[in-house]
Amino acid sequence: MNAEIISVGTELLMGSTVNTDATGVSQKLNELGINVYRHTVVGDNVERLLGAVDLAKERSDLILTTGGLGPTCDDLTKQTLATAFGLKLVHDPEVERRLREYFKRFEREMPENNLQQAYLPEGCTVFYNTAGTAPGCGFTAGGVTVVMLPGPPRECMAMMEKSAMPFLEKFCDSKILSHTINIFGRGESDVEFVLRDYMNSLNNPTLAPYAKTGEVQLRVTAKAKNADEAEAMMAPVIENVKSALGDVIYGIDAGSMEKRVVTLLSEQGKTLSCAESCTGGLIAKRITDIEGASKVFAGGAVVYTDRVKTKLLEVSQQLIEDCGVISAKVAAALAENVREKLGTDLGVGVTGLAGPEGDGKNSVGTVFVALAAEEKTYIRSLSLGDASGRDRIRVTAANHALDMVRRFLTGADVEAIDVK
Amino acid sequence: MNAEIISVGTELLMGSTVNTDATGVSQKLNELGINVYRHTVVGDNVERLLGAVDLAKERSDLILTTGGLGPTCDDLTKQTLATAFGLKLVHDPEVERRLREYFKRFEREMPENNLQQAYLPEGCTVFYNTAGTAPGCGFTAGGVTVVMLPGPPRECMAMMEKSAMPFLEKFCDSKILSHTINIFGRGESDVEFVLRDYMNSLNNPTLAPYAKTGEVQLRVTAKAKNADEAEAMMAPVIENVKSALGDVIYGIDAGSMEKRVVTLLSEQGKTLSCAESCTGGLIAKRITDIEGASKVFAGGAVVYTDRVKTKLLEVSQQLIEDCGVISAKVAAALAENVREKLGTDLGVGVTGLAGPEGDGKNSVGTVFVALAAEEKTYIRSLSLGDASGRDRIRVTAANHALDMVRRFLTGADVEAIDVK
Repeated sequence: MNAEIISVGTELLMGSTVNTDATGVSQKLNELGINVYRHTVVGDNVERLLGAVDLAKERSDLILTTGGLGPTCDDLTKQTLATAFGLKLVHDPEVERRLREYFKRFEREMPENNLQQAYLPEGCTVFYNTAGTAPGCGFTAGGVTVVMLPGPPRECMAMMEKSAMPFLEKFCDSKILSHTINIFGRGESDVEFVLRDYMNSLNNPTLAPYAKTGEVQLRVTAKAKNADEAEAMMAPVIENVKSALGDVIYGIDAGSMEKRVVTLLSEQGKTLSCAESCTGGLIAKRITDIEGASKVFAGGAVVYTDRVKTKLLEVSQQLIEDCGVISAKVAAALAENVREKLGTDLGVGVTGLAGPEGDGKNSVGTVFVALAAEEKTYIRSLSLGDASGRDRIRVTAANHALDMVRRFLTGADVEAIDVK
Repeated sequence: MNAEIISVGTELLMGSTVNTDATGVSQKLNELGINVYRHTVVGDNVERLLGAVDLAKERSDLILTTGGLGPTCDDLTKQTLATAFGLKLVHDPEVERRLREYFKRFEREMPENNLQQAYLPEGCTVFYNTAGTAPGCGFTAGGVTVVMLPGPPRECMAMMEKSAMPFLEKFCDSKILSHTINIFGRGESDVEFVLRDYMNSLNNPTLAPYAKTGEVQLRVTAKAKNADEAEAMMAPVIENVKSALGDVIYGIDAGSMEKRVVTLLSEQGKTLSCAESCTGGLIAKRITDIEGASKVFAGGAVVYTDRVKTKLLEVSQQLIEDCGVISAKVAAALAENVREKLGTDLGVGVTGLAGPEGDGKNSVGTVFVALAAEEKTYIRSLSLGDASGRDRIRVTAANHALDMVRRFLTGADVEAIDVK
């Protein structure tokens, strides 16, 4: 089945909105084994939309539209597609009932305009909207299947997953599944070098790298008759990558390093605290982004100035003067003191220079990360380079801190690093 | 001048990459007064690209392509566009010199493949790539202007601004400029209600709302012969919005609340610290995202557990037991103690329940934010509702904290709130 996506909205052509709908829907169509050959964006304009649909009818088996289903006069997708396929719009009493209920729930009067959302192409399968008012729909006419989804990304993706994918599955004889292998501690080009021949030797499943700031992700994708078969095809590939890369793999479909760390801490009933200088709260923020962090994360200190390091965490002024505030010893003192003061199993300490301005002593990107456990304090000395910029230096420093915790909890070598 | 953008790349159709190039380029074309009527995405496929170009030639004055300029065999844009317009590719010695220099700088051998990047359509204006290897170009043939830009977003946007916009300016007789009015403290529908008639009465300049998590932004856009004229047209609109909305406007083109706060603190030579419970480091992280934050931000504490509140900031255990840890008094104690302990002019304290799990006493979304200054401590009590979710509760709580600092520093009513 060959598909094209037509997105409707002047805001996309103005550059006010990024077309994430096309990206998300493409992912899902690819999962179903449907090939996407084209994306088109047109504004809120009947003539240009009709032109795009007329071309699409000739060359595609599936036309999927996003946007243009709302109640205002800008919203024209449903009417135009019905015209293009010679269908009437007919009233759907269930959609009207749901619309009235939606407005009642939010204690608002329903504008008369919204009633037009209850009219849908005759004979279509209605997709109810669980996140907004505009329903979507699917139908087949003249050998072409049409799916219409609303524009707001949350509504579009919810309807794609809940209604459009089940509707489309009957046209598909294969299933595409994938897993992500999460890697930290080895550069992308290095991972590619090690795995290049293996990646090239694969056809189905495939193995391909995806970059993420400071991390590397490999995606394994298999196309098969059903999910079980796809999983069975992917398992040996994942095992081979594990053998090749070892403990730089921090998880499979792990989501993020912070999620992995919170999961490990929870499983082992251990607690963490942190003292951050150059990362300025980023580590705490990332950990507390994760639901359930409060059970394993006590908190910590953002110690942006020397005064705060001595005041909140009693790092000795003498030590700061002797070794410099950006030093392995100060990182260790931060980690040890926050751990002891907050009574947690593990303590993290970070000190460094994120720039862009220098301090006259250290080069921008110099960072020391420490992890204090009961029996030992571990240190990483990093030179992250000023070319990578302030944001990237902060994210990478936080990644190293999370990686040290992950390695400690999984029994791997805590200080081993390859990426700088 | 009517334009369409053709983006080339199978990764866009797989949903692996979001087409931010089309968004960024559209913004810039609109600024030049060029109307964008279509976006098209095709994969790395000569036939489908040629098909898209042949259609575009018939209906557009400008075809702008992104992607497909790299040295691998996937990259086919230049060859296909040259074919479509009957042009030869000719060798450009300056491009070759720059390519060799680029590889020398990174101490890498230049693969022979890269040499094909030195061949460009005869008679074109070359756009040198300051962020990568693939050059872009612009030419006019058969009444149609063509611009080709590389795919990686950083390279694409740098070349658009530095080379393609100056190249395109000679075709444009108008300039479109806009300003963003940044608002916090009033809901989007309320802002729209107040300004609806005024917005509808405007044609050029226009005034339109854009939502951002927990904030409202209004964009004023004017099309004029030159920048001065556009600015003169927008000034009275900005003044009218200011009169209508008052001090919920936190800035014009301010970028973000944290940027505005760091700017105000810097201008006034004042310092800030913060003690965060449910925001878990988010306020510190946002402030330290801003360059130069180290001059005005001392740091703070992430006080996720009761123990940390008493240990790091000496909030009395008795107060926590008497009032509950989620209370105005504990927020005030956090703000006052962090301010005093760190010796800053202002201190912020936040305590609340971000969920999704409850604590058996407070409803999810209950948050107290305090701002301690020398003479007074200000409090906001918020019920942010659990429907909005953990992330949104945290972001909104942080927004309120930043808003209180902003209001204090600009002499506005610190405790006034309208949005909950």
